[in-house]
Amino acid sequence: MTDRWAHAAALDAIDPLASLATEFDLPDGMIYLDGNSLGPVPTRVRERLTHVVNSEWGHGLIRSWTDAGWFSLPMTVGDRIAPLIGAGPGEVAVGDSTSVNLFKGLAAALHLNAGRRVLLADAGNFPTDAYMAQGLAELVPDVRLRYLEPGQPAATALDGDVAVLLLSHVDYRTARVQDMARTTADAHERGALVLWDLSHTTGAVPCDLMAADADIAVGCTYKYLNGGPGAPAFSWVHPRHALRVRQPLSGWMGHASPFAFTREYEPAAGARRLVAGTPHVLSLAALDEALTLWSTVDLEALWAKSRAMTTLFIEAVEASCTSYGLTLISPRDATQRGSHVSFDLPEGGFEVVQALIARGVIGDFRAPATMRFGFAPLYLSFTQVMHAVGHLHDILATRAWDQPRFRTRGLVT
Amino acid sequence: MTDRWAHAAALDAIDPLASLATEFDLPDGMIYLDGNSLGPVPTRVRERLTHVVNSEWGHGLIRSWTDAGWFSLPMTVGDRIAPLIGAGPGEVAVGDSTSVNLFKGLAAALHLNAGRRVLLADAGNFPTDAYMAQGLAELVPDVRLRYLEPGQPAATALDGDVAVLLLSHVDYRTARVQDMARTTADAHERGALVLWDLSHTTGAVPCDLMAADADIAVGCTYKYLNGGPGAPAFSWVHPRHALRVRQPLSGWMGHASPFAFTREYEPAAGARRLVAGTPHVLSLAALDEALTLWSTVDLEALWAKSRAMTTLFIEAVEASCTSYGLTLISPRDATQRGSHVSFDLPEGGFEVVQALIARGVIGDFRAPATMRFGFAPLYLSFTQVMHAVGHLHDILATRAWDQPRFRTRGLVT
Repeated sequence: MTDRWAHAAALDAIDPLASLATEFDLPDGMIYLDGNSLGPVPTRVRERLTHVVNSEWGHGLIRSWTDAGWFSLPMTVGDRIAPLIGAGPGEVAVGDSTSVNLFKGLAAALHLNAGRRVLLADAGNFPTDAYMAQGLAELVPDVRLRYLEPGQPAATALDGDVAVLLLSHVDYRTARVQDMARTTADAHERGALVLWDLSHTTGAVPCDLMAADADIAVGCTYKYLNGGPGAPAFSWVHPRHALRVRQPLSGWMGHASPFAFTREYEPAAGARRLVAGTPHVLSLAALDEALTLWSTVDLEALWAKSRAMTTLFIEAVEASCTSYGLTLISPRDATQRGSHVSFDLPEGGFEVVQALIARGVIGDFRAPATMRFGFAPLYLSFTQVMHAVGHLHDILATRAWDQPRFRTRGLVT
Repeated sequence: MTDRWAHAAALDAIDPLASLATEFDLPDGMIYLDGNSLGPVPTRVRERLTHVVNSEWGHGLIRSWTDAGWFSLPMTVGDRIAPLIGAGPGEVAVGDSTSVNLFKGLAAALHLNAGRRVLLADAGNFPTDAYMAQGLAELVPDVRLRYLEPGQPAATALDGDVAVLLLSHVDYRTARVQDMARTTADAHERGALVLWDLSHTTGAVPCDLMAADADIAVGCTYKYLNGGPGAPAFSWVHPRHALRVRQPLSGWMGHASPFAFTREYEPAAGARRLVAGTPHVLSLAALDEALTLWSTVDLEALWAKSRAMTTLFIEAVEASCTSYGLTLISPRDATQRGSHVSFDLPEGGFEVVQALIARGVIGDFRAPATMRFGFAPLYLSFTQVMHAVGHLHDILATRAWDQPRFRTRGLVT
C-alpha cells in the first residue's frame, strides 16, 4: 500500500492537468467521485452568469439575441464540444435535454433510412433511451421497438427491418466502452444506422465520430463537461446526412429564416436544423463558459489520466477490500473502460456509499447492488484516489456502514 | 394632450402596482415596450442565481437534486404559474421550450382523440406553432395538417376528422384575444380538442382554463413572466385528461419512478408525465425566482392596468400621429385586446422603431409593416406611455426616422 501511495504522489507530480483543479470550486476536503453524474462548478461560470444577467439580459435586453450572440449559442457552444468527439465546426447543435435529443435522433434515423421501421435499442442503455424510443414507437403506428438483450451481439439482431441501432458508447453502470468503428461498420453492412449516446463519453473517453463513420450522436453536458445541473445536451449528425436529415421537433430556431415568419418550415442548412425552440440562454451560457476550459486541455493526456486513475483505484481496492464481498463489474482492460469504476456489493453497498458520503467521499449507488465511482481527470488527483480507497477500506473493515442512519433511501441514490 | 398627461399622472398616482417597478432592473431612462418579447431582470433573480451556483451546485452538488428540490422544480415552478391561467396545483409542468411543448400537446391530443387524425392550426399563430405541427404530421404517416385561414371561423373547418384545434389565445401580431370558453365549446361540440398557446397571455391577460373547460395549453415564460432569455416553457392538461394522456417525449423525468430504472416507461401520475428529460436547473431557478413576485400581485388590478395602458397609448397615438400613415391593427375594444398594441406603417415602420430604440423607447417590428409595443403592467407607468407617444410623434413629425442608420436590418427586428 505504501508503494501505491508513493506511486500516486509520483503520478500527481508529473500530471500535466494538475493545475486545472484550481479552475473548480469544490468544498474543502471533499473527494468528488460523482463528476460522471454532475460536474462541479467551474469558477469562471460565476462571472459569466453575472455578466449575462446584468449586462446582456439587464442592459442589452431583447437586442442581446443578436448583439450578445444568444441566437448563435446552440452552434457556437456546439463548436466547443466538437473537438472532444471527433466532429467538425458547425456539426454539433446544443439545446434541449439528452432525452429530447434522443427522440430527434431516432426520428431522424427513421427518416434517413426510409422503409425500415424497427428501432433496436440496447437493453443496457440508460433507461431514458428506451423510454424515448417507446414514446416514438407508440406515436408512429408502424414503428416497432426491439431490444438487444445484455450480451447479445448486435449483428444477431440486425435484420432487414432495423432502421437504427441505439447504443451507449460507454455503459452507465459498468463503464464498458463499445468499439464504435467496428459496431458502426457491422450495422452499416446490414443497412442500419447507429445512434450513439455519448453521455458518459464526452470529456473523459476518446471518441472520434468521423473516424468511426458514425451517423448520429447525442450526449450530456452536465457530467464531465461541468455545464451545470441539467445543462443543455448536444446532437450531431454526420455531414453526409446533415443536408437531407429531417427531425420532427422542427421549431422556429431550426428554420432557415426564423424571422421571415413564413408558414412553411424550411430547415436551416446543416446541424442547425437539429435546434427546436428558443435556447435556454442562462443554462447555455453557463455551459459555454465551462467549455472554455477545454481549449487548453491536451486530450491525450486527459484520456491517459482517466485510465491511470481508474486503474489505480481498481488495483488499490482489489488489494485491500475484496475480502469484504466487492466484485468489479467494470472492464479490467483500461482501453475498454470509461472514466468510472463500479463494484457490486450486494450486502451493504448502498450503506457503504452513504458512509463514504458522510466522510466527504462522494460516489453514487445504482440499485440493486452497484457502487459507482467517477474519476474526472480535470480536478481529481491520484492522491485523492488513494484517500478514497483508504476510507472505503476503513468503512468495510470496521463495518462503519452498518448503521441505521446510512439506510435511508432518497430519490437520487 | 395636456389633459392626457394629467390623466396619465393621475392614473400613476392611484396605480396599486406602481411600487413593483422597483423589483426590476431597467437601464436608466429606458422606456421598455418589449416585455411581450423578453421581460427585464427581476432584481431578486441575481441573488437566487448566486445561491444556486455557489450553494446548491457548488456545495450541495449531486445531493441538491433532492435537498434543494431540483427534481421537483418542474412542478413547483408550475404551481406558481397555475393561478395566472386558471389552473390548479400539480396541473402545470415546466420545462423544455414552447415549441417542444407544442409537439407534446399536439401528440397528446391525437392520443386522447383517437381515430381523428387532422391537426387544424390557425394560420395566424406564431410560426413555430405551424412548424411543430408540420413536424408531427411528417413523422406520423396518417396525420394531416390543415390551416384555418385568417378570418375563417373555426366552426366552418371543424369536421369529423379534426382531432385538435391549435390556437393562440392572444395573437402575437394584433393582440386580438380569442374567446376561449366559446371556442372551446364549439370545438367540443364538433368532437375536437383545443390546444391553446398562452405565450402572449400569461401574466398580462385574464385566462381561466378551468372555467373555459379547456383541454391542453402551453405557454412561454420569458415575456410577461420575466423568467429570462429562453426560460423554460409550461404545459397544462385538464385534470380530466391528465391520468390517461400520453405524450411521446416520454423521458425519465416524467416516469412514475425515475430512479427505479425499469425498462418500461410508466408515466407519472398527472401533469408530471409532461416532463421529458433532466430539467435545466439554472434557467428554471431564475424563472422560479421571477415568479415569486406574482404572489403579491392583484390580478384584477394587473389586467385593468394592461387595458388602461394600451387604451391610453392608442388614444394618444391616434390623437397625434395618424396623419403620418399609421393604422391600428389591434382591437379597439380593450376586452378583446392583449397587452400589446400594433400599428401598421408601410412607409418607414421599420425605421421609426429603430429611431425610437435610439431614443431609449424599445418596441419591435414585425415584417412587413407592423410596429409592436408591449405594455407590461408590472414595471411601466402611464407617464412612460405618454413619453413614448411623445417620442413617436416627434420622430414622425420631423421625419427623424428617415436616415440611413435606421435602415440596417438585423436578425431580430
